[in-house]
Amino acid sequence: RINPDRLWDSLMEMAKIGPGVAGGCNRQTLTDEDAEGRALFKKWCDEAGLTMGLDEIGNMFMRREGTDPDALPVYVGSHLDTQPTGGKYDGVLGVLGALEAVRTMNDLGIKTKHPIVVTNWTNEEGARFAPAMLASGVFAGVHTLEYANDRVDLEGKRFGDELERIGWKGDEKVGDRKMHAYYELHIEQGPILEAEEKTIGVVTHCQGLWWLEFTLTGKEAHTGSTPMPMRTNAGLAMARIFEMVQEVAMAAQPNAVGGVGQVTFSPNSRNVLPGKVVFTVDIRSPDQAKLDGMRAEIEKRAAEICEPLGVGCEIDPVGHFDPVTFTPELVENVRNAAERLGYSHLDIISGAGHDACWAAKVAPTTMVMCPCVGGLSHNEAEEISKEWAAAGTDVLFHAVLETAEI
Amino acid sequence: RINPDRLWDSLMEMAKIGPGVAGGCNRQTLTDEDAEGRALFKKWCDEAGLTMGLDEIGNMFMRREGTDPDALPVYVGSHLDTQPTGGKYDGVLGVLGALEAVRTMNDLGIKTKHPIVVTNWTNEEGARFAPAMLASGVFAGVHTLEYANDRVDLEGKRFGDELERIGWKGDEKVGDRKMHAYYELHIEQGPILEAEEKTIGVVTHCQGLWWLEFTLTGKEAHTGSTPMPMRTNAGLAMARIFEMVQEVAMAAQPNAVGGVGQVTFSPNSRNVLPGKVVFTVDIRSPDQAKLDGMRAEIEKRAAEICEPLGVGCEIDPVGHFDPVTFTPELVENVRNAAERLGYSHLDIISGAGHDACWAAKVAPTTMVMCPCVGGLSHNEAEEISKEWAAAGTDVLFHAVLETAEI
Ligand SMILES: NC(=O)NCCC(=O)O
Ligand SMILES: NC(=O)NCCC(=O)O
Repeated sequence: RINPDRLWDSLMEMAKIGPGVAGGCNRQTLTDEDAEGRALFKKWCDEAGLTMGLDEIGNMFMRREGTDPDALPVYVGSHLDTQPTGGKYDGVLGVLGALEAVRTMNDLGIKTKHPIVVTNWTNEEGARFAPAMLASGVFAGVHTLEYANDRVDLEGKRFGDELERIGWKGDEKVGDRKMHAYYELHIEQGPILEAEEKTIGVVTHCQGLWWLEFTLTGKEAHTGSTPMPMRTNAGLAMARIFEMVQEVAMAAQPNAVGGVGQVTFSPNSRNVLPGKVVFTVDIRSPDQAKLDGMRAEIEKRAAEICEPLGVGCEIDPVGHFDPVTFTPELVENVRNAAERLGYSHLDIISGAGHDACWAAKVAPTTMVMCPCVGGLSHNEAEEISKEWAAAGTDVLFHAVLETAEI
Repeated sequence: RINPDRLWDSLMEMAKIGPGVAGGCNRQTLTDEDAEGRALFKKWCDEAGLTMGLDEIGNMFMRREGTDPDALPVYVGSHLDTQPTGGKYDGVLGVLGALEAVRTMNDLGIKTKHPIVVTNWTNEEGARFAPAMLASGVFAGVHTLEYANDRVDLEGKRFGDELERIGWKGDEKVGDRKMHAYYELHIEQGPILEAEEKTIGVVTHCQGLWWLEFTLTGKEAHTGSTPMPMRTNAGLAMARIFEMVQEVAMAAQPNAVGGVGQVTFSPNSRNVLPGKVVFTVDIRSPDQAKLDGMRAEIEKRAAEICEPLGVGCEIDPVGHFDPVTFTPELVENVRNAAERLGYSHLDIISGAGHDACWAAKVAPTTMVMCPCVGGLSHNEAEEISKEWAAAGTDVLFHAVLETAEI
């Protein structure tokens, strides 16, 4: 068994870097806080005898040697970056849980045939630079490195420039590694495990996603002196699209969601109707046909909403992944480990995207989940119990040992 | 008739001070550019034989003597400050049109019984220091001088300090003047005159306004892993309120508007349902009962929208003025002048707020309007024709002469 107190202490230590304003974290990717978090993680890895590989997109690969020089490594990890008002566990538990598994192997003198590589993927959240899971996406060949480097944040800063600035750009070519397998532990970020009173989520699939970035073009005009019939009101078109997305998601129940998290009005002045409105619709489903059907329906109805208002409507799909089916043998390892360790468990579908979704393109992959209070995540109030963290990490440890071969 | 070329040349000269980035102006109140614009205006007034009064809030009163020592002056003016991305005419036409009327009186050797005071009000725009029409509001007793001096800009600079810094704070007590009448020429800032192919707007009223700042509280949650029935979606509540404001404004037609120019989502991340949404509803009508009825209806229906969604709703009225009815005798003077000079004209209601709205609290007041291309204002692309400028100034000239008595 892993050491629950050591794991928890590390989680609490990491949470001090980039503290939030309400008990959570603001350690967004490629900020000074990200650099500080990486340095602390590396220090812990050094102490555990791991050696670092750092690729050109800042992915950190912390290696524990195996006994067979020809065996490919088992990768285990997640991400240390957070949302602007994020929790202490989203991503972090997966990285520090992997580190705890390795620390436990050290404690017990366990040698594995396959090396173990504890991994921290750059910019999983996609909050500062869209899309999410950017660096694992480049690793898996879904995006080019140039595409990633050219992403800009809301202040116009480039991903590539910010990576150099914080000093975590490496020399290794991105994706130049073969994985024997990839495991990722993560909090559920949803309410199902807690509601069903299960401690371990055996993750069989992940929902697919589309991020549709809408740019609506209205006519910048005075809110007072522009009569109602003469308005080209992009804000009103936006409101109708929000309502329509809600309708489309409700009609696609069960196993589908749709909503909007980001909106920018220009020029955003109280007495000026916006000339430009930009927002991102987030739709997801584990069912590929349903997901693509929602997208088509939303695009068709958005055009029907904007046309009579005279509002221009452009839609840019800024994020996408297909639904993922995880590798059955690894899923079975997770289920067996939970069973063997005596933890209650449930097969579930991941509602959020994870680096594991891209890893699944290039290696046998699966995930382990543990509950979070009220299903709350992407919120500073995100909470888990020490017992849940320990249970998830125990299951991860045992499933990884199964694949890495003692 | 006034001199169209001299008027136009003065407008173009003034526009060189604080030039914008796209053909317009950035001559915000109490900047070095404002000081430079005031100095040029004063030089022109000196050349026209006017004498200056300057009050403690920087309002400039440029006086041409009348023949009756006991007669109160007729005030004519507007403002020289602009939006950060403002046009060359909003406000400026009203000040330089008044100067042109006086220059024409000089040319023609016209003497009036009442003195004429060409007026430049400080900080009409309210772009740098909210609220708009600040100095005329102090003049009319709506705000105290202390309130005005304590306004701060986004950099934290105080209005009172900035006024002293640019050297345009006078000694005269604000509001210590009696007006025989007040006239203001302004571009329409709306599309009606151009659409109706009329050259002169005879302004009978000004709309009243409420700015209602909404703060909606939802539950910050993951867009992917939060099932539809478990959402507390403040963005959806906002969308329904936008649609409802539109409905309320349409039901109040004619002579009512409602819209939203400013929106802030928090944390404004693509995969986070917003925990907080702040936006300002701008509603206006020239009919007091209608305006207050719209406000009550919006507040009632907003509560009904938010309640079933579980979204918290707070409403703060951050701006307000009552509808204004301009003085019928002066309105008649404007209409007669347009008629006599052979300009097509239309009775209109000012959609925007103006210094004339506060002047109307303390003196017989009215306005003259001329069209602007596409109704565009608060935009560097704001444009008018030399003919429209001349026509508006001609009508102003004749209406003022009527009141000032030859
Ligand atoms: N786990 C997580 O929140 N990833 C970010 C990508 C997503 O929105 O699903
Ligand atoms: N004229 C003008 O735009 N004034 C600003 C106040 C308003 O929004 O009406």
